[in-house]
Amino acid sequence: MATYKIAIIVGSLRKDSLNRKIARSICALRGDNLDCSMVEIGELDLYNQDIDTDNPPASWKRFREQVGAADGILFCTPEYNRGVPGVLKNAIDIGSRPYGKSVFDQKPAAIVSASPGSIGGFGANHQLRQACVFLNMPVMQQPEAYLGHVTDDSFDADGCLKEGPLKELVTKLAHAFHDWVNAILRARELLLHDAAKEQAKEPA
Amino acid sequence: MATYKIAIIVGSLRKDSLNRKIARSICALRGDNLDCSMVEIGELDLYNQDIDTDNPPASWKRFREQVGAADGILFCTPEYNRGVPGVLKNAIDIGSRPYGKSVFDQKPAAIVSASPGSIGGFGANHQLRQACVFLNMPVMQQPEAYLGHVTDDSFDADGCLKEGPLKELVTKLAHAFHDWVNAILRARELLLHDAAKEQAKEPA
Amino acid sequence: MATYKIAIIVGSLRKDSLNRKIARSICALRGDNLDCSMVEIGELDLYNQDIDTDNPPASWKRFREQVGAADGILFCTPEYNRGVPGVLKNAIDIGSRPYGKSVFDQKPAAIVSASPGSIGGFGANHQLRQACVFLNMPVMQQPEAYLGHVTDDSFDADGCLKEGPLKELVTKLAHAFHDWVNAILRARELLLHDAAKEQAKEPA
Amino acid sequence: MATYKIAIIVGSLRKDSLNRKIARSICALRGDNLDCSMVEIGELDLYNQDIDTDNPPASWKRFREQVGAADGILFCTPEYNRGVPGVLKNAIDIGSRPYGKSVFDQKPAAIVSASPGSIGGFGANHQLRQACVFLNMPVMQQPEAYLGHVTDDSFDADGCLKEGPLKELVTKLAHAFHDWVNAILRARELLLHDAAKEQAKEPA
Repeated sequence: MATYKIAIIVGSLRKDSLNRKIARSICALRGDNLDCSMVEIGELDLYNQDIDTDNPPASWKRFREQVGAADGILFCTPEYNRGVPGVLKNAIDIGSRPYGKSVFDQKPAAIVSASPGSIGGFGANHQLRQACVFLNMPVMQQPEAYLGHVTDDSFDADGCLKEGPLKELVTKLAHAFHDWVNAILRARELLLHDAAKEQAKEPA
Repeated sequence: MATYKIAIIVGSLRKDSLNRKIARSICALRGDNLDCSMVEIGELDLYNQDIDTDNPPASWKRFREQVGAADGILFCTPEYNRGVPGVLKNAIDIGSRPYGKSVFDQKPAAIVSASPGSIGGFGANHQLRQACVFLNMPVMQQPEAYLGHVTDDSFDADGCLKEGPLKELVTKLAHAFHDWVNAILRARELLLHDAAKEQAKEPA
Repeated sequence: MATYKIAIIVGSLRKDSLNRKIARSICALRGDNLDCSMVEIGELDLYNQDIDTDNPPASWKRFREQVGAADGILFCTPEYNRGVPGVLKNAIDIGSRPYGKSVFDQKPAAIVSASPGSIGGFGANHQLRQACVFLNMPVMQQPEAYLGHVTDDSFDADGCLKEGPLKELVTKLAHAFHDWVNAILRARELLLHDAAKEQAKEPA
Repeated sequence: MATYKIAIIVGSLRKDSLNRKIARSICALRGDNLDCSMVEIGELDLYNQDIDTDNPPASWKRFREQVGAADGILFCTPEYNRGVPGVLKNAIDIGSRPYGKSVFDQKPAAIVSASPGSIGGFGANHQLRQACVFLNMPVMQQPEAYLGHVTDDSFDADGCLKEGPLKELVTKLAHAFHDWVNAILRARELLLHDAAKEQAKEPA
């Protein structure tokens, strides 16, 4: 099975963020085929088109390069005020510009939202999906991951998810995400291959 | 190129529905590779789980069969009260049940929303996308189709779109939709094929 | 304290609908000041503008009259496929037309969503709120009511909510809803009164 | 007529932001009764709960004080990637914390979204409304303001809106917003007054 480079973007800057722990768990569960790296967003300057010139802030350049190098994107985020945290949306806005040069374009994605409450970040999850439409990112539909009742106690001393329904869902999701990235990237190759063949057939 | 059976579901019951005309135009533009048929929703009884027994209303059976036979789904809908028209959502609710037997499951889809106003059904479009997450339908992300300023005058006497930016966008969409259905269905075959190979390798 | 006529619209047609039971509980809890009546939506013909003439279906007329007579509206609904049930949206579409004659206009509202699952209908709840913007219905913001883990066992033999956190939240909500209707209707009177005074001051 | 202190929060940091110009126009149109001031958000540190201690960043303190002093809030925002700009959401997240001390609580609000395109920021507008539910901010429902086709050319040399349908809508909105703030604040006084009277009646 192919291994894919996955950029993980976590929607909370808290050092002990539950979503960061969930993200690490997903990596650990599929470390064989998902080559994960966290892309940090806490140092990013606020997006302002006026400074998005040929020489934008270094923090933006670094972020755009790291995301651009990935095969797929995994978002793990809490919900703030029934929506996407501003820190995460700021990162997305930065990666999406300048117009026509979005580093997110065409990358397959999955969205996980986790919270200590019961709703599991449903609002943040679907607002992110709305952004992904514009960003042209095919997002995995199932399993949905509104992870509720997640607390520090969901993890063992090594930061791994304890056995139970939460770990089962996250494991299922990690496998489905690998399949989704695999499917989208190989399908794209097929289409490109077909298009090349069509073109070759055309008379000079 | 492969030809796919597409079920078109129109979100308005008006005889002269603009969205029905848009749907017909998409079929006409890709008649070679999209084998389109309209699935009517105006006769569907309102969804009620109490009557969703072994012998549900005939209107539901017919709808479920027609949708189930398709390779992909195209929704063309107006926006009512900033959301999905009730008539369309009722059809979706019917097709999605009984639990575990959704006829929408895994079918690739595209969503077009058209209106005489300028917003082009943005609200309905994204609420439908939200449903498709649960329905496990991979939805085409680009081009988005919030078709504004659509009127009877957008079509010629034969019901075809007149030349202009609207026709250009719809043509682009029709081609992208064929590619999307193609990509998703072939990718699924690849994954199934891989899984079969993996299994064959395992010792008895 | 004033008593207000509240039309309750339940988003499920199931005879034993949990949301219907929740609705009844809210009425019982504030029976002194909320004069509640259920407005049934199971017999409504699907909305079709072509038949919305001077003589529309009798089911529509009845619905429009019943909603029109109310001081405020309470929606209690499950979530179907991450959104508003089609049966409920159909009722809303009917009440909102013909253009300029919406029976919902200006009526204060509250939205409750209940489900056996943990998310408590968050998606349906917020899609309804999106409709209420267009419908010009001031919706109570707090307390939000995404009632999760609601089952038949949440109610006693008389259909009343058993003691516990769910009943506490619903009680708080019932009181807040009375205050909300009260506030909106009295504020409107004040504004009308002011406007009349302003006009009286103007020279003939 | 009463004059209210309105904090305006603009969702773009661009110096020549169209939404900033729209905001200024609204102030100019109702300068008699809306005492408007812009609350800047471009210097705000990204929200991070770890540093939201007794001594949070000075930029947060200033923002919270300015918003807290207002009677009502006016949001004027573009749409970024079909949603609320990260810079605006970051400001909202900051104002909403620490838990239980949100400076937005109970403040009446209006939401305006403007863009050069035709959709007028519909997605950003409704995501903001979703946040306002949690923030317990009563939001004006009508007129909705998805201001499309706004460009520098919509304004005259003094930055005022030129005569035309856009200015008419914005004028209507400015008046409706004054009425909305007026209604919500006076209604709240009535309810407090009633509650005090009820309490006075109770035997010692």
